[in-house]
Order: sequence, then C-alpha cells, then structure tokens
Amino acid sequence: MKDIAFVLYPGLTILDMVGPLQVLSALPAFVPEYRVVVVGADKQPVATDTPLSVAASHTFDEVPTPYAVFVPGGGVPTMRALGDEKLLGHVRSMAEQAEIVGSVCTGSLILGAAGLLEGHRATTHWMCRHLLPKFGAAPVAQRWVRDGKMLTAAGVAAGIDMALYLVQELAGEDVARQVQLVIEYDPQPPLGGIEWDEVDIVGRKPMVDEWLAAGLADHPKLLGELIGS
Amino acid sequence: MKDIAFVLYPGLTILDMVGPLQVLSALPAFVPEYRVVVVGADKQPVATDTPLSVAASHTFDEVPTPYAVFVPGGGVPTMRALGDEKLLGHVRSMAEQAEIVGSVCTGSLILGAAGLLEGHRATTHWMCRHLLPKFGAAPVAQRWVRDGKMLTAAGVAAGIDMALYLVQELAGEDVARQVQLVIEYDPQPPLGGIEWDEVDIVGRKPMVDEWLAAGLADHPKLLGELIGS
Repeated sequence: MKDIAFVLYPGLTILDMVGPLQVLSALPAFVPEYRVVVVGADKQPVATDTPLSVAASHTFDEVPTPYAVFVPGGGVPTMRALGDEKLLGHVRSMAEQAEIVGSVCTGSLILGAAGLLEGHRATTHWMCRHLLPKFGAAPVAQRWVRDGKMLTAAGVAAGIDMALYLVQELAGEDVARQVQLVIEYDPQPPLGGIEWDEVDIVGRKPMVDEWLAAGLADHPKLLGELIGS
Repeated sequence: MKDIAFVLYPGLTILDMVGPLQVLSALPAFVPEYRVVVVGADKQPVATDTPLSVAASHTFDEVPTPYAVFVPGGGVPTMRALGDEKLLGHVRSMAEQAEIVGSVCTGSLILGAAGLLEGHRATTHWMCRHLLPKFGAAPVAQRWVRDGKMLTAAGVAAGIDMALYLVQELAGEDVARQVQLVIEYDPQPPLGGIEWDEVDIVGRKPMVDEWLAAGLADHPKLLGELIGS
C-alpha cells in the first residue's frame, strides 16, 4: 500500500488541501495500490480559513512512512506553523522516507522551515516567493515545480493542476484525463487568466510581513530572518 | 448582514463546496455586509467523498433566512439526499426567501427534488444533465447558468468559476480580480481543457443509474421516475 498523505494543521487555506485531495482521491479506483489519507496531530476538527472545520482521517503516528506527503499553505496560521517544531518534526520524518514531498501555496515555506528545500528549485504563492531563498531554495515562477522528490505548487488553486500532473506521472495520461473529466476541470475563469504584468508583487510585501509578525511573535530569531527583505 | 450559506450533508463531493466557499469567503473583507456560513443538521463532522471529514459552522435553525444558499453535489450520497425530505425541507425553506439559490455539480438535482427548478434553465455534472428535465428544468451545457434567482454550476471544479462570476456580480470586476489573484486561479490543466467531442456522455448513463439505484433503494417511486431514461 502506497499512502498519499495530506498534512492537516489549524487555520490552513482549505482549497490548498481539497483541490489536490479531490484529484488524488480518484486515483485508487484506477490504481488500487494507492491510498489517500489526511494526517493530523489528532482527529478532532480544526478551523480553516473559511467557516468550514475539518478533521483528519489518521494521526501522524498512524501513518509514519507515507509514499507521498503534501503540505498545504495559508496565511498567518501557516507562518505560525513555521515555528511549530512538533509539526516540522512530523513533516521532516515523513519526508525522509517518502518518494514524493510536496506542497501547495505557502506550504512550501513549511517544507523550507523543516530544512527540506535546501538546494532545490521550488515555488509558492506569488506573494511569498521572496521568502524561498531564506530556506536555501531557488524560487521559480511556475504553476508547479518538480525537482528531485520535491513537488511544489504555486498559490491555492495551483494544487489542482499539480495533482493532475502527478496522476499523469503515477498512472499515465489516460487516467489523468479520466480524473479531469470526473471533476469536470475545464476551467473558464469569468475574467480570463491572471494578467501577471499588472500585478504589484513587491507592493504586497508589507502584508506578508504582517502575517510573519503575527504568526512568529514568539519566535523572534526566525521572524528576524524572514521579515522585511 | 447578508448570509451566504453552503449546505452540508454526509458524503458530498468536498471540492463542490470548498471551491466556491474559498472564493466567497474572500468577499466579506471587501464588502463587510456579507457573511459566509456552512449550515448542516448539526455541527458534528460528517464524511465526504474523500478521507477528510468536515463540520458545519451553523445549524439550519441558526440561519433560517440566508441571502444566498448553495447546495453541493456528489455521487451516491447525493442521490440518497434526493429522497431526504428533511434536507429538502431545509433547502426549500431557505430558498423561498433567498435572493440567490445555487448549486454545484449534482447539487442541482437536490434543488430539483425540492421543486425549485421547475421552468428554469439549469446545469449539473455532465453525466447527469439528462436528469434535469425530470424536475421540470431545461438542461444547459454551460459552465454556470444564471436564470432568475437560480445559479447552477456544472460539475465539481465549475463551482470556482461560478463563484468568481458571483463575486463580480455582487462586488464588481475589480474585487473579482483581486479574489482571483489571492487564490492564484490562473488555471493550467497539464493536459489542456476537456475535449467534449471525445466524451461518451450516453455511455455513462449505466453508472448514473447505479448511483440512483444505490441511493434511492428506499424510495422506489422516485427511483422509478429517475432511472433508465
């Protein structure tokens, strides 16, 4: 059995998890050796960045060596997670033996804080790409980045694209097309795609600094390393 | 306060809810008169079609008259919901006074079973469009359909497009673009969009009939009306 584990922690951006979770949960019907699980400190409901609360299917202890592990991102709660040694320890320990270590959005910062991105090309939410070098990673402005066993996706909705890419990698193009069809992923953004030329990335730094300051108030050393540059 | 309520019931397809929930949860930061809630029979965690369990923020009784109500879809559990008079009663009662009554995926069949689609143009998951006329609705093969106060989306991922359209309607193009940017919705399906010409829609009918038979075994009259045609 190859477990694909999604890491749950309080306050995450829920679409970061649910996008790829929905995609990859379709995989076992085609390739029964895979099992998808959501792992957390316990199985009690935790808050998300929406009114929905969500609960893990397994504890970290129950799935110590998954085949693949994915870490979702978020705002202030994710910055807080960067200083949560217990969570980082679980992620580090799962990642050590996993064949695929992935993230969506600012989840890559958690991989970075766990020391897993050193020397890797990686991506994250567009507002936070400047933070990746702090963890020894080379930031890449792509929808998803595969580098060795690391598979990082850009912000929030990018996790869907990344997961479909992974289905293709694990089970082939035909299965990936069938999964895409089942979830009717034929996107038609009403206003078209994002016009990146018009996006003021640097202008959002103060907001990211606020998130860092709020999330890492109890970790002044780490905060000092990450903030303001 | 204008409440935007998402209806939770056991076994739903979780991306049906989380896609538009993530989008619309960004709205109150721009227009504080809106509040987003997840309503259910109680606040206990319920199963989804993935390993994630999810819990409502409010009971039906706590939000009797939302401004907008959205019903997500799913497979067998959604077919089961078509015969759940208690759930249909809550949906009907919320819809009566709501300004916007919406659905994602097969959630529109629940609206139909509640008697809300009579004489309306509507859409649903591509596998189930043939069921809409059973509820007096005219099926439309579009990403989302706005007809009067009804706003129905196609399968699963279509809920994201529909919700961004709604943000634009409620708060204007600039806010819709900002929400799209925050969730980095700049889709790049690895294998491109869906090639509808190559999709065997009629060939999936037996699977939909199986879902109906499994979900409505205790409701032979309704099952007889919906199955096999």
